[in-house]
Amino acid sequence: MRLSRYFLPVLKETPKEAEIISHQLMLRAGMVRQQAAGSYSWLPLGLKVLNKIVRIIEEEQNRSGAIQLLMPTLQSADLWRESGRYDAYGKEMLRIKDRHERDMLYGPTNEEMITDIFRGFVRSYKDLPLNLYHVQWKFRDEVRPRFGTMRSREFLMKDAYSFDLDEASAVKAYYRMFVAYLRTFHRMGLTAIPMRADTGPIGGNLSHEFIILAETGESAVFCHADLLDKPIPAIDTDFCGDLEPIFQDWTSLYAATEEMVDMPAFEADVPEHKRLSARGIEVGHIFYFGTKYSEPMKATVTGPDGKDVTVHMGSYGIGPSRLVPAVIEASHDEAGIVWPVSVAPFEAVVINLKVGDSASDSACEELYARLESEGIDVAYDDRDQGAGGKFATADLIGIPYQLIVGPRGLKEGMAEIKHRKSGERETLPIGDAVNRLKTLIIPQRRDAV
Amino acid sequence: MRLSRYFLPVLKETPKEAEIISHQLMLRAGMVRQQAAGSYSWLPLGLKVLNKIVRIIEEEQNRSGAIQLLMPTLQSADLWRESGRYDAYGKEMLRIKDRHERDMLYGPTNEEMITDIFRGFVRSYKDLPLNLYHVQWKFRDEVRPRFGTMRSREFLMKDAYSFDLDEASAVKAYYRMFVAYLRTFHRMGLTAIPMRADTGPIGGNLSHEFIILAETGESAVFCHADLLDKPIPAIDTDFCGDLEPIFQDWTSLYAATEEMVDMPAFEADVPEHKRLSARGIEVGHIFYFGTKYSEPMKATVTGPDGKDVTVHMGSYGIGPSRLVPAVIEASHDEAGIVWPVSVAPFEAVVINLKVGDSASDSACEELYARLESEGIDVAYDDRDQGAGGKFATADLIGIPYQLIVGPRGLKEGMAEIKHRKSGERETLPIGDAVNRLKTLIIPQRRDAV
Repeated sequence: MRLSRYFLPVLKETPKEAEIISHQLMLRAGMVRQQAAGSYSWLPLGLKVLNKIVRIIEEEQNRSGAIQLLMPTLQSADLWRESGRYDAYGKEMLRIKDRHERDMLYGPTNEEMITDIFRGFVRSYKDLPLNLYHVQWKFRDEVRPRFGTMRSREFLMKDAYSFDLDEASAVKAYYRMFVAYLRTFHRMGLTAIPMRADTGPIGGNLSHEFIILAETGESAVFCHADLLDKPIPAIDTDFCGDLEPIFQDWTSLYAATEEMVDMPAFEADVPEHKRLSARGIEVGHIFYFGTKYSEPMKATVTGPDGKDVTVHMGSYGIGPSRLVPAVIEASHDEAGIVWPVSVAPFEAVVINLKVGDSASDSACEELYARLESEGIDVAYDDRDQGAGGKFATADLIGIPYQLIVGPRGLKEGMAEIKHRKSGERETLPIGDAVNRLKTLIIPQRRDAV
Repeated sequence: MRLSRYFLPVLKETPKEAEIISHQLMLRAGMVRQQAAGSYSWLPLGLKVLNKIVRIIEEEQNRSGAIQLLMPTLQSADLWRESGRYDAYGKEMLRIKDRHERDMLYGPTNEEMITDIFRGFVRSYKDLPLNLYHVQWKFRDEVRPRFGTMRSREFLMKDAYSFDLDEASAVKAYYRMFVAYLRTFHRMGLTAIPMRADTGPIGGNLSHEFIILAETGESAVFCHADLLDKPIPAIDTDFCGDLEPIFQDWTSLYAATEEMVDMPAFEADVPEHKRLSARGIEVGHIFYFGTKYSEPMKATVTGPDGKDVTVHMGSYGIGPSRLVPAVIEASHDEAGIVWPVSVAPFEAVVINLKVGDSASDSACEELYARLESEGIDVAYDDRDQGAGGKFATADLIGIPYQLIVGPRGLKEGMAEIKHRKSGERETLPIGDAVNRLKTLIIPQRRDAV
């Protein structure tokens, strides 16, 4: 993408309304624009990151055996009356009347609708286990939306729903999502720790939150420091196999948010030098809730003995529109965002130090074309601007590698690569630049982990 | 994808509520499920087709120079009061009050919001031309939604918006979209004809509908038969170059829908043997409307002479959730859907005629694995069912190529490929099957056209 033809409205000033660093940086980097309270447009740079995050989530959901579909944003109130949640849900649910005065609502979650789909089609235990997920916009009418897309009213969510014949199978489904979530966050460059959680309005009796550590996190967390170094389940993990050992391994060490922490237990369980208290951001939440929805909504299958069995369910949420700021909270410096390659809007940017200089222009054009043809997601800063502004923009928007080309270096046949994260700079023959960038980038890609 | 683990709820009976063939087939093939009047869930098979259609649209939008962003589904009523459309739009607009009694609406289109984004960031004529698009769910509260996703209330739309300094540049932007649309529909296997159209509530003075021909189309169309054979602009079309000749070439021949047709003019313009009257479905609509929104909403830039100039705009819509049934209307037979490879949910299906037979199972597993590793989007029908049901399902859901493997053929080392469209069958050595499928499929892919 040539930046001269792109839509990248970076801001010089930090907007006053933004309280947290991710919100400030997303506005400054031209990633989002507020349209109403808690409602954002995703500008081109922000949308690219959001889409890369969604792709990682989808790949790991598919790998675990979940199947993607898509439910509409608006739902009929009748389904929610069946489960008893229509009146219970409170003012966060956006209630709507259509032109025929029918009660509808903008879905804040989809347990009812997916249960309705299930009971409409699935008849036999032979069709289980089944895990269906979608990635769709949802709406929760928070009294005071804040922190940009970290807590917006209209937000994107991946929500999966598992259906099993009994509790034992349902817990296996829970383990599959547990492992998929560990891999998902790891591939975005995040350190995510599963913590036993309250089930809240979703209900049920087994639940974990996935919390990523970030100095600017919203809540305090208390955990065993070894959780930071635990190996992540590998890409060839057999999701049809026994995942309980992985689950036990991860949950045997103490980890709790401030809402759930029992300080005496924390201190008893964890040796003092291993006690980690830090700040965290919730980025995922998984629930097993048995027959809470299948019972009132009569979602049953015929069991092996010919009798009807009410299915056991779980639900599993990740918020991609919240993960974008969460990654920024976990990875930034004074100059701006520091994207991991796996979710960066561009993997590299070619910076032309002197647009209009024919040697610079032709060298940059050639590098840009070669990087594109090698499949690198590359931007080309071909704007007629000073070098200082270009460096500041590249740093601010967090592109992992800057390939800097100008007349002075070109005279010697040299270019420079700046590593955004470490600040390291390397000068190298211009003919080596493409291969060098490939060597740096490809091992860090989302499909490489 | 193994069909034994997929969610593919095909129906044996044609649902009574479905009036048109595409709606019947989408329900029978397990592509969608109705959730409320005019509201559908996209089941896994349907979502795969929808996503492939969206990808083609995005690729052609990007190729033409348009830049993707994403606006929220809900909008503030205030923006629509600025343009004067809040009161004018009528009952099709779904009006909503949030918990603070603020007036909101579910966006039926986005001229106002994109104009607001534009005026918030763009200051200079140097930033033009600019074309911003998104693909987002929209809602129009039709009195009587019908025909499945062909005319649903919640529907997916790609809408692009162009901004230019003057009418001459705006018309060039219009030509770029005109050409992009010709390529877009062609890549989905559709014959789309641009027809001069009424501008309706969007307003403006230059507008074309893109109508695809289908026997079951909703409206009559009248055009010059040579439009069917016109060459489509090639993949290397220079969108920075002069596209007017292409526009003139396509619009010089008579073409009109029944609402716009002038029969005496049709008969005067078109020699009798070239007069085509057929049925058509509208799948895209483009508008140039000048300063209709930029004027009241004060979207201006500083011109070359330092004075403020009100920008000229156009908007350009395609409905992907409408295109899915439109492709089916244009391509089906008595046995079911006949997908073009470019949008087929799977490019091929391996049909195991005798699950449980060790020779069949191992041959199928190997073929399935090899096709996957060759990058073919392949399904494997490994369900423990009779051959008749498998053939019927493969035909119904319209997979372009069926690779049929069973014990009898295997004894001779042979398999069979059935071409869904022509009904042709070829028997070939099993070792040749993967290469033969690649030879058939790859040239028909969406990126090959």
